[in-house]
Amino acid sequence: MKVQAAIIGAGPAGLMLGHLLRAEGIDCVVLERQTGDYVLSRIRAGVLEQVTVGLMERLGLDARMKAEGLPHDGFNLADGERLIHIDIKALTGTEVMVYGQTELTRDLMEASAGRGLEVIYEAADVALHDIESDAPFVTYRKGGTQHRIDARIIVGCDGFHGPSRQAIPASAGQGYERVYPFGWLGILADVPPCNHELIYANHERGFALASMRSHTRSRYYIDVPLTEKVEDWSDERIWDELAMRLGPDAAAHIVRGPSIEKSIAPLRSFVFEPMRHGSLLLCGDAAHIVPPTGAKGLNLAASDVYYAAEALIGLFRAGDGDAVPAYSGKALSRVWKSERFSWSLTKLMHRFPGHGPFERRMQVAELDYIATSEAAQRSIAENYVGLPV
Amino acid sequence: MKVQAAIIGAGPAGLMLGHLLRAEGIDCVVLERQTGDYVLSRIRAGVLEQVTVGLMERLGLDARMKAEGLPHDGFNLADGERLIHIDIKALTGTEVMVYGQTELTRDLMEASAGRGLEVIYEAADVALHDIESDAPFVTYRKGGTQHRIDARIIVGCDGFHGPSRQAIPASAGQGYERVYPFGWLGILADVPPCNHELIYANHERGFALASMRSHTRSRYYIDVPLTEKVEDWSDERIWDELAMRLGPDAAAHIVRGPSIEKSIAPLRSFVFEPMRHGSLLLCGDAAHIVPPTGAKGLNLAASDVYYAAEALIGLFRAGDGDAVPAYSGKALSRVWKSERFSWSLTKLMHRFPGHGPFERRMQVAELDYIATSEAAQRSIAENYVGLPV
Repeated sequence: MKVQAAIIGAGPAGLMLGHLLRAEGIDCVVLERQTGDYVLSRIRAGVLEQVTVGLMERLGLDARMKAEGLPHDGFNLADGERLIHIDIKALTGTEVMVYGQTELTRDLMEASAGRGLEVIYEAADVALHDIESDAPFVTYRKGGTQHRIDARIIVGCDGFHGPSRQAIPASAGQGYERVYPFGWLGILADVPPCNHELIYANHERGFALASMRSHTRSRYYIDVPLTEKVEDWSDERIWDELAMRLGPDAAAHIVRGPSIEKSIAPLRSFVFEPMRHGSLLLCGDAAHIVPPTGAKGLNLAASDVYYAAEALIGLFRAGDGDAVPAYSGKALSRVWKSERFSWSLTKLMHRFPGHGPFERRMQVAELDYIATSEAAQRSIAENYVGLPV
Repeated sequence: MKVQAAIIGAGPAGLMLGHLLRAEGIDCVVLERQTGDYVLSRIRAGVLEQVTVGLMERLGLDARMKAEGLPHDGFNLADGERLIHIDIKALTGTEVMVYGQTELTRDLMEASAGRGLEVIYEAADVALHDIESDAPFVTYRKGGTQHRIDARIIVGCDGFHGPSRQAIPASAGQGYERVYPFGWLGILADVPPCNHELIYANHERGFALASMRSHTRSRYYIDVPLTEKVEDWSDERIWDELAMRLGPDAAAHIVRGPSIEKSIAPLRSFVFEPMRHGSLLLCGDAAHIVPPTGAKGLNLAASDVYYAAEALIGLFRAGDGDAVPAYSGKALSRVWKSERFSWSLTKLMHRFPGHGPFERRMQVAELDYIATSEAAQRSIAENYVGLPV
């Protein structure tokens, strides 16, 4: 098979990019190691920035999101008894959309066949070749046979552990990383949320986040040491802990229910530079990871996809030889700012094992300052709704 | 001697408070361990917030400051080649005043006699007694004799090492502290400044600050490891280092000259809580220290003095028994926010020994974000000109 662009990974980034390229008549294929059902079973983020909503609108795939998604015009920072409301709509003129990554992926997936976007699931042993040339190719195994796809450009949307970033020689790039000394224990349950907006809480017992996927499905998190095992956390123990950390007002409105999903995810900041090597572009988690505080992961993948689509449309439609080389710089400029926001909100809202009373008082002082400064609130709000692409 | 208020320390905080109390007819005396000349020989801060300017106006002691001081409506953050201009006047409607602490102290000192503010210099072995009672007293030695001053209130404006804070029993308070792994090597010289505004630089060789006291007197700093000795830094070596760290544009305008003063000051964040114990109030460095980044030290002393004057006027003029107990909470609310700003600007603009490539990229990302966000610039500017009292 020969295509203009071979996309590796059929998560939201790969599918979104595939749809954007198909809409411009660019010939592409998406390769995915897992089954479609497996991809849909992964529970991920649920807060969409305007850049992500905008791409779904541009694709005309926003109908269900608009019908079922929950526009949010604010969120809250909690510190013990206090709730600091960040009125993002008033501060920025924009809102965010609560709509599960799973639902967005489903919308993209279901539209693939009708729009001529070929997605090959269960493609095993995907490998990238000749990425430094203008004629790279991808090989994979499926149904017992070896396959080869020739392309002009390969785009790696295959996540942190996928083969794309690893195909770049060590001497050609650099990874920047910070690992945090805790993980997020998440619980998903079919119960109404305790608040109509998100609450990020920094309690003396640790971090908590009250979030949701819909009016009837809630997503909560607490931070736990990385040594904790999910088996040691019964649903009741998690609900008890949430009630304490979110404070009495929120606790009074928590509706408990059996977990649909429960897992512990480590927190990491990671950026790989550059995001292009020869004919290979990296998008999303393949190039960078953010801690989940602030919900930037999926949205950063979406802005990468925006820039990658711009680059490939420039190359294939306008014959612009500078479009692809410009990709990494444009994408990274926004990536680093989102990394900074996620890192700083993580530092503000978590208790760190090595921190003493002074660092704790700096957290309190920052929350006090945010509570009383319109400029500080606007800075947080503009990052939360997403910096401009 | 018996007074309503005994003030310990005749630096700018003690003198300002003394004048404010005298203007209200409150009977007070200021005790100072050093001579007046010694106090004036201490080279300190030089950027005054509106709160400090406002107190000098209120005292009618602003004539020389208005004539000789330099109003500044902006400052700059530099990062290698780049200069990020923070237009504080446009962002906040306010400006700051460049006027040396030494000059401000001189204005306060010279007005003392004419306004009936008694200042006793060379008061040795100052000790505080019965501070938990309503009849505290201070003892000191002068000219070979022991003296005693009875008061209703004692105010400690005697700096970090003075006797006031140490008079509070350990069980009655708590200190919060962070020590930084570097000091500022400062040079004062009678040369015109390299820029009409301040420049804070984070260069790969380390931090630098280009500042001034007047059109003909410059104050520069670089950060150095705490193990450095000032004797190892010739004037030429400092000028060479400044030229590298401030970058080529600033370096082209540096005028070199012999140092009038040269010293290394360690950087520390410190807050003591509460700022009142019984009949003793603490103001300024006696209660808290900020790293010099952002020039908050003198200004924070001034806002303490503002609140302390309010408390004592409430007690002595209005007979308000709640005024003095309210002091600590009011002062600390502003103290912690200024501590936070000084700490965060210090972290942004210095290279820390333990930090790796990720932390460095977070500094760059924060500077990139500040360079492009009006909200971020306004947040910095409102802290720089001083949060409201």
